Amino acid sequence: MKKEVVVGIDIGGTNTDFCIVDREGNCLLKDSLRTDKYDEVEPFLDELTGIIKEQIRSQNGSLEVVGIGVGAPNGNYFTGAIEFAPNLKWKGVVPLAELIRQRMNLPVVLTNDANAAAIGEMIYGAAKGMKDFIVITLGTGLGSGIVVNGELLYGHDGFAGELGHTVVYPDGRMCGCGKQGCLETYASATGITRTAIEMLEKSNEPSLLREIPKDQVSSEKIFQAAQKNDKIALECFEYTGKILGMKLADAIAFSSPEAIILFGGLAKAGEYIFAPTKKYMEYYLLPIYRNKVKLLPSLLKKENAAVLGAAALIWANQKK
Amino acid sequence: MKKEVVVGIDIGGTNTDFCIVDREGNCLLKDSLRTDKYDEVEPFLDELTGIIKEQIRSQNGSLEVVGIGVGAPNGNYFTGAIEFAPNLKWKGVVPLAELIRQRMNLPVVLTNDANAAAIGEMIYGAAKGMKDFIVITLGTGLGSGIVVNGELLYGHDGFAGELGHTVVYPDGRMCGCGKQGCLETYASATGITRTAIEMLEKSNEPSLLREIPKDQVSSEKIFQAAQKNDKIALECFEYTGKILGMKLADAIAFSSPEAIILFGGLAKAGEYIFAPTKKYMEYYLLPIYRNKVKLLPSLLKKENAAVLGAAALIWANQKK
Repeated sequence: MKKEVVVGIDIGGTNTDFCIVDREGNCLLKDSLRTDKYDEVEPFLDELTGIIKEQIRSQNGSLEVVGIGVGAPNGNYFTGAIEFAPNLKWKGVVPLAELIRQRMNLPVVLTNDANAAAIGEMIYGAAKGMKDFIVITLGTGLGSGIVVNGELLYGHDGFAGELGHTVVYPDGRMCGCGKQGCLETYASATGITRTAIEMLEKSNEPSLLREIPKDQVSSEKIFQAAQKNDKIALECFEYTGKILGMKLADAIAFSSPEAIILFGGLAKAGEYIFAPTKKYMEYYLLPIYRNKVKLLPSLLKKENAAVLGAAALIWANQKK
Repeated sequence: MKKEVVVGIDIGGTNTDFCIVDREGNCLLKDSLRTDKYDEVEPFLDELTGIIKEQIRSQNGSLEVVGIGVGAPNGNYFTGAIEFAPNLKWKGVVPLAELIRQRMNLPVVLTNDANAAAIGEMIYGAAKGMKDFIVITLGTGLGSGIVVNGELLYGHDGFAGELGHTVVYPDGRMCGCGKQGCLETYASATGITRTAIEMLEKSNEPSLLREIPKDQVSSEKIFQAAQKNDKIALECFEYTGKILGMKLADAIAFSSPEAIILFGGLAKAGEYIFAPTKKYMEYYLLPIYRNKVKLLPSLLKKENAAVLGAAALIWANQKK
């Protein structure tokens, strides 16, 4: 009997990772391709699907591929298109699912990277068995995938779950989206770096972070300094956790989830980010929600989380 | 053939309204009872169900009652209980659905008043045919009922949809819930009244509102003054709409609804509240959501909206 597998594809601005994944979440065959080398999407997809077909052929007919799941920035589940993704060279609306379907003759499901991560946590990770939870990805920006009653929340137009662009301070930091004071300008790897630079400029407090050039301050460097008890670095985490915790309390008042899962680079700082986030989340919660909602780290390995999430989209759809 | 009807019950702190409702939303027989006259819930329910049974009997067997829908403050859909409602005399957890079931021997569905209003709008009102929308009730407080994919959002514990207690200003106005700066301390009938009193105290601007004693300033009085172009009254609506619009933009970033429906006393101020709310909502939205989400007035008549919503709970459940 053939082994049922899916193809998971994670399209990023620089690299595209892809993998043939079985039901248990094992990556059987993996590879990657430089996204930014292709000015046009069609030659990129010719190359990508060529490699995937070769991978499948190499297994001498032992695999049955049941579908292809794709996570991509600004991926719209309803339309199957990437719509106006600022970090990709392919501009406007790219009907990606259809273009892959033409080449592979298989069902293709597309969504954005944070939604793919949420499905990945539900099928393989920290949200196994949960029906109501939120995944927050703390990377360059802040993404969110919201699961309600066992299904991803897409909303009326497929774009639900942009918690990174809810407002913290109406007159606050400029955001890449054109607005001011968005959550992701504070709670993300770049957000905490902006906080560190502001704090270094405003005070004379000695700090390990003063020993590195400003343009090399990063969330990792702040984490390393915090581990050495650097006061400014610790204050950065406290400040970031306060803002993130407050907005997570808002999110809980919206959908009353069982858990919120933090994923991505900044979440790797462990208790340095979890402790203040949890403290302020509880503080800003309505009493009926207090001490009920778990704040958990992702259980997906970083290197293949996005690919697994994309693959899981197909298994999740099959369950229906 | 018997006519299928349901009983809709709206329990408020002062009055309980109830009605026998047909599938088209016609109130066939209605009555009400003083809630606050009953220190204990059991004699209250004995009286209430006694009247309802009498109403049904009076129709000489022409009605077939298929269920009872109840909207009540802090009503939990999952448990069928009213849990710690601050405005009711019955304290703690009251297993209301079960107590009514014992007396009527019919299916009973309970939820909170804002959720009942949302179902009412979907079955009979402004949200007919919609699958993703939010109803905001602007009364003494701010309630919200969120519909996602055609179903009420209850979350993990039945308490989803408390947008009135999301945070506007962390150090802002004291809220009845014990927190500070909650949305409902600004955007509600009492919120706009607090705003008016603050504005009157802070400025020397002449205003019609100065002619009435402070404890008689109300959202209706502010509305009447605004209709006469009173500057302070107009500023109150602008300020309230700015805060409400900003938080509605946050809500849209969460669930990407087709429409937001404003219901209740303050919504009756029409364009005075809708215009600034819409303006700031659009301003604070991520570009992908702009000019897409409708801001609509309720289409349920005030006098029976909550009762109709409660009744609609039964019809909505039958559809599944």
